[in-house]
Amino acid sequence: MAATPLSLSFPPIPVPRLGVMNRPSPVIAPSILSADFARLGEDTAKALAAGGDWVHFDVMDNHYVPNLTMGPMVLKALRDFGIGAPIDVHLMVKPVDRIVPDFAKAGASSISFHPEASEHVDRTIGLIHESGCQAGLVLNPATPLNWLDHVLGKLDLVLVMSVNPGFGGQRFIPEALNKLRAVRRRIDESGRAIRLEVDGGVGPDNIAAIAAAGADTFVAGSAIFGAPDYAQVIRAMREGIAQAKKTGGD
Amino acid sequence: MAATPLSLSFPPIPVPRLGVMNRPSPVIAPSILSADFARLGEDTAKALAAGGDWVHFDVMDNHYVPNLTMGPMVLKALRDFGIGAPIDVHLMVKPVDRIVPDFAKAGASSISFHPEASEHVDRTIGLIHESGCQAGLVLNPATPLNWLDHVLGKLDLVLVMSVNPGFGGQRFIPEALNKLRAVRRRIDESGRAIRLEVDGGVGPDNIAAIAAAGADTFVAGSAIFGAPDYAQVIRAMREGIAQAKKTGGD
Amino acid sequence: MAATPLSLSFPPIPVPRLGVMNRPSPVIAPSILSADFARLGEDTAKALAAGGDWVHFDVMDNHYVPNLTMGPMVLKALRDFGIGAPIDVHLMVKPVDRIVPDFAKAGASSISFHPEASEHVDRTIGLIHESGCQAGLVLNPATPLNWLDHVLGKLDLVLVMSVNPGFGGQRFIPEALNKLRAVRRRIDESGRAIRLEVDGGVGPDNIAAIAAAGADTFVAGSAIFGAPDYAQVIRAMREGIAQAKKTGGD
Amino acid sequence: MAATPLSLSFPPIPVPRLGVMNRPSPVIAPSILSADFARLGEDTAKALAAGGDWVHFDVMDNHYVPNLTMGPMVLKALRDFGIGAPIDVHLMVKPVDRIVPDFAKAGASSISFHPEASEHVDRTIGLIHESGCQAGLVLNPATPLNWLDHVLGKLDLVLVMSVNPGFGGQRFIPEALNKLRAVRRRIDESGRAIRLEVDGGVGPDNIAAIAAAGADTFVAGSAIFGAPDYAQVIRAMREGIAQAKKTGGD
Amino acid sequence: MAATPLSLSFPPIPVPRLGVMNRPSPVIAPSILSADFARLGEDTAKALAAGGDWVHFDVMDNHYVPNLTMGPMVLKALRDFGIGAPIDVHLMVKPVDRIVPDFAKAGASSISFHPEASEHVDRTIGLIHESGCQAGLVLNPATPLNWLDHVLGKLDLVLVMSVNPGFGGQRFIPEALNKLRAVRRRIDESGRAIRLEVDGGVGPDNIAAIAAAGADTFVAGSAIFGAPDYAQVIRAMREGIAQAKKTGGD
Amino acid sequence: MAATPLSLSFPPIPVPRLGVMNRPSPVIAPSILSADFARLGEDTAKALAAGGDWVHFDVMDNHYVPNLTMGPMVLKALRDFGIGAPIDVHLMVKPVDRIVPDFAKAGASSISFHPEASEHVDRTIGLIHESGCQAGLVLNPATPLNWLDHVLGKLDLVLVMSVNPGFGGQRFIPEALNKLRAVRRRIDESGRAIRLEVDGGVGPDNIAAIAAAGADTFVAGSAIFGAPDYAQVIRAMREGIAQAKKTGGD
Repeated sequence: MAATPLSLSFPPIPVPRLGVMNRPSPVIAPSILSADFARLGEDTAKALAAGGDWVHFDVMDNHYVPNLTMGPMVLKALRDFGIGAPIDVHLMVKPVDRIVPDFAKAGASSISFHPEASEHVDRTIGLIHESGCQAGLVLNPATPLNWLDHVLGKLDLVLVMSVNPGFGGQRFIPEALNKLRAVRRRIDESGRAIRLEVDGGVGPDNIAAIAAAGADTFVAGSAIFGAPDYAQVIRAMREGIAQAKKTGGD
Repeated sequence: MAATPLSLSFPPIPVPRLGVMNRPSPVIAPSILSADFARLGEDTAKALAAGGDWVHFDVMDNHYVPNLTMGPMVLKALRDFGIGAPIDVHLMVKPVDRIVPDFAKAGASSISFHPEASEHVDRTIGLIHESGCQAGLVLNPATPLNWLDHVLGKLDLVLVMSVNPGFGGQRFIPEALNKLRAVRRRIDESGRAIRLEVDGGVGPDNIAAIAAAGADTFVAGSAIFGAPDYAQVIRAMREGIAQAKKTGGD
Repeated sequence: MAATPLSLSFPPIPVPRLGVMNRPSPVIAPSILSADFARLGEDTAKALAAGGDWVHFDVMDNHYVPNLTMGPMVLKALRDFGIGAPIDVHLMVKPVDRIVPDFAKAGASSISFHPEASEHVDRTIGLIHESGCQAGLVLNPATPLNWLDHVLGKLDLVLVMSVNPGFGGQRFIPEALNKLRAVRRRIDESGRAIRLEVDGGVGPDNIAAIAAAGADTFVAGSAIFGAPDYAQVIRAMREGIAQAKKTGGD
Repeated sequence: MAATPLSLSFPPIPVPRLGVMNRPSPVIAPSILSADFARLGEDTAKALAAGGDWVHFDVMDNHYVPNLTMGPMVLKALRDFGIGAPIDVHLMVKPVDRIVPDFAKAGASSISFHPEASEHVDRTIGLIHESGCQAGLVLNPATPLNWLDHVLGKLDLVLVMSVNPGFGGQRFIPEALNKLRAVRRRIDESGRAIRLEVDGGVGPDNIAAIAAAGADTFVAGSAIFGAPDYAQVIRAMREGIAQAKKTGGD
Repeated sequence: MAATPLSLSFPPIPVPRLGVMNRPSPVIAPSILSADFARLGEDTAKALAAGGDWVHFDVMDNHYVPNLTMGPMVLKALRDFGIGAPIDVHLMVKPVDRIVPDFAKAGASSISFHPEASEHVDRTIGLIHESGCQAGLVLNPATPLNWLDHVLGKLDLVLVMSVNPGFGGQRFIPEALNKLRAVRRRIDESGRAIRLEVDGGVGPDNIAAIAAAGADTFVAGSAIFGAPDYAQVIRAMREGIAQAKKTGGD
Repeated sequence: MAATPLSLSFPPIPVPRLGVMNRPSPVIAPSILSADFARLGEDTAKALAAGGDWVHFDVMDNHYVPNLTMGPMVLKALRDFGIGAPIDVHLMVKPVDRIVPDFAKAGASSISFHPEASEHVDRTIGLIHESGCQAGLVLNPATPLNWLDHVLGKLDLVLVMSVNPGFGGQRFIPEALNKLRAVRRRIDESGRAIRLEVDGGVGPDNIAAIAAAGADTFVAGSAIFGAPDYAQVIRAMREGIAQAKKTGGD
């Protein structure tokens, strides 16, 4: 794969500021937590070549969640390898602020965090923006929506967790559909083209229902990297999304 | 590189229990913190093919040290890739116990930790042994030696830090030579063939002095992975060690 | 008291899944925090013989609240003594997850926790269920109701604190009546027969008002154990509940 | 300046308990975080002589916010110096309870805290009242309003942050106007004359809009202490408040 | 059992201040962590009647160690039950200071703590003394002796752990014999009759060697409470101690 | 007092690097924790005019010690006021590193910290030096000396606490004399002119003994600021020091 120079590879994620009726086009973000860490550059490039739009990058610190995954140096290695797609960082760490500039410098496009993990949520959003990245807030399955009340106007994306982050072997939590619908409504009312991302147990089988509930950005890990043919899975996911659109969605 | 199956690749590190006069043969452990994370399997294999004995694996959690690196899934990927050499895990995390079994299951050969990071140091050593790994204690540059007083009889290795872990851009701290000599004496008095490892700013230029001070296991990161020819660096390191032996050492 | 074998003594708490109009029958749960710890088996059995339905078991860790009370070994001793009634564990500890399996193994019937004390509330509920216990969420006097928004469908009970847990000498906080009414409404709307428990300053004098506000499960400590005749107090409490039902309740 | 004896200087803040239509008269509270710490008594007295009503006292502990400012001994020195005005303490510390009695004994009139910084918010309010002070709850820019749901009936003031506390160089966050309006509505509905205080980037230029949104108590630091003539600034602020009243306000 | 009134039951532990040659007479302290918690008063009294000298009381908080046991209320219940023997509290909690007065008020005779669990060890010793109790320092298996360097002159007892506290199923760690000998030497050199206590895996089989190493105060839990005849075990332990004395000891 | 401009006022503390026989000349450092915080500039200047050499500046964060005092802004105000003497900062905070640059920028001359409060003691010393300040290590009354083993060669001062920091109403702990003698020996053996500072309960009555034990830098708070005539106290302290020298000292 030919390396795209980093300076080109790191524009702001193209989130058009559209009206309510014009939601951003769907994005599929392969989560490299399920990729082969011994061949991370190659496996990531393969998932993008197979139709993935963004790279989803899960950071766990063994404190906010009971697992430890990968940090800024790994992200930078992907940029140096030539990965030019947006890299969407999901911080499952506590506290948040100290590590934000490290990820921004390493080449992150967007950085999302959990409101429970930062004592100054508005400040963390500002810090992410000052670092040149788009900012997202992540809602755990039990986290209420009112964390959005006073910051929705500043967010670039809301990530709804449909499993509990950091714990293995979970399936999509059905209640997440209700939460997606509720967040969708609030985004639409805001008149801003904030992305609504979903992460956890998403795959070809349930993506139509998830898209119908209002999600436009879909993280998928083992569904993609665990399959023999990444492209086939991603195609099936796009078909599910398209089907949701036809039947009217939310 | 031909992959060694995991079942073969994970015997206990062969530390012979020898008398004082028979120190274990020197080991060079390339630290993959300086390897290319996008091609980690390949780069690790290359360092081993170039003469490296062990793989040194640095785990940082953004709490015990201000950086976050890589966790058990990355280690497992190396084993799945076929890395058969001993993998020497250095935990810069706090607390320690919860993550020990994860690293053991992923394929670690030895696990070392900082006494300040565990409230029950003797218990953590026992836990590492029960998990099937060799156990090491790591001494930060300022940490006094008396942490060894009541556990030296259970340790498989002592790791003397010659830089402060987790902070970039540091050079070998000269005081570490005194500490190496002091630990060497205590190991020799114990009559057990405990390995004496050193990590931080080690390279061809200073390895002779470090070996003369008593170290037998040498971690090197950028000295190896930052060089165009890994084999040449490792050869130069071995020559430095040999020279120290000839001139009598400590 | 004849010992009931543990295998018989630990069925799921019989919470029938009824419609809105059929609330579960009232339960009185003597809190053994006020019992005689030197004769805990005997005093607990006495409170049950006097008409208590459940045993309420308060666990404090000197971190989430400024007191330390009793752990899983004490609960197990009650089971070994022959206490066959449901034991209703209220965890005032932070973090929560590590200790859940210990209480389940010791013989807990239900385990309730504070949402502020777990970073992954949905996951903790799941863990309690996997451990074979019923799961409850506890709302401190100031805690807002929206912690119920996305997990009410999984809960077996909601515990409304009518004093601040862990601090002595407090009286029933009147605002708790409003909160009970609000939770009652949400439970009824859910169509699930979730128990609504209340703890703190409950006694014969105010139980009618509390039952009228919607509670169906009543914890009482010193009101019972501080009285010369436990049975008389419990009878008086049942009369208060019955009176609330007649006058129409909520 | 003539010293007012401490016994006189520490009456309860005169918050009249009025009906909805009779809001408390406006208060301007110079924040001495911007005063000259080498001449704190003199500079504080000067701001009061220039028309300041209260002294706003910002306490940071380098844990809840990344700065450390001043503690109870400094407050006591102001009382000993003769400062007789109400001293309005804003605790940006975590945890809260331990330090409350120290500030009360030192001469605080009111003590406000962040709900995220106390595990037992209702208890902390009670503790402040038992210490003889008025109690306030502080809402960070992102903090939702539902922390008020079950304690508004006990509060003497609500402090809406219009910047993120503890971080320098921030301007008034426009979203704070919406939050002020929403809190105003809840206070008016409560029928209690709770003060609505605002802190962060408040000055003569924007105070009319802020007053119109419902605030009645205005903290100003650099706007006052950074000006050559404190009295002129305070006069200009009062004019802005008066103007808001005339044009109808909220 | 006839209750001894508390006022009589709580004299200072009779530690005579003797010269080096006159060590305090041996004490056997049954650890009620292994007693029946449902009949704690009765079982404790039984162990004392069987020849136990002190009651050893293990407090765990699920933070300093991964278990939670019992707090001040349980201790007070034992005093109210009539237990008149010295109660020897071992705090496995962190932090320490807040809970010390609670245990003193509840009737503790001595309170011991881990130096790693208090940031101000000398202060904690002073606090225990001011609370009217004797003060002990506990050394974990790996903890070096130099924590005694500057406080030995203030201590009433040193407790050497011969297992890791809070973890089940451990046997006596042989290295503890070396540590006992070393502490014995330091106590003898101090010229103060400080008690040397040992806890963990102590029983009739190894008590002679442990006494020979210098211990004079012996905690035993399951060895006593797990036996059908407490008195027989305690007699066997005393015989072991006597045998150590005859053969000369340390 | 005439203000010395800040640029002149902040040279390195003049610690001559002398041989063992040539200890640095004695320094008296009034601790402004006991000064009048309402007139801090004036009171500090008065203590310097009365013969004080350094200003001792005690920083408490309500976490490492149970009190909160003053931060970098207060130090800066003293420099702006014109205080030109060395300002000797004692950090009783945990963690340490984040606040070091703030104090350096504010005008600190030396910064001392507790080894228990930094996980990377050698790194913190380096950070203080890089910030342009002299670095000191503080030993609590119970803290053993071996924290000096591997960093003495980098320190500019060692501060021996003769009371427990952060707790009021304590008297000089006699054991501190032994510790001073032991540190004195280690400093003399090092051949470096490291200052040996003492803090806590120091005054005219005991300073001769303290100086004789090896201290050369004497912190005094209430002894100076609590006296009607600062100069008289400082003169009496110098006489005590001189007397110790005559009678031979250590």
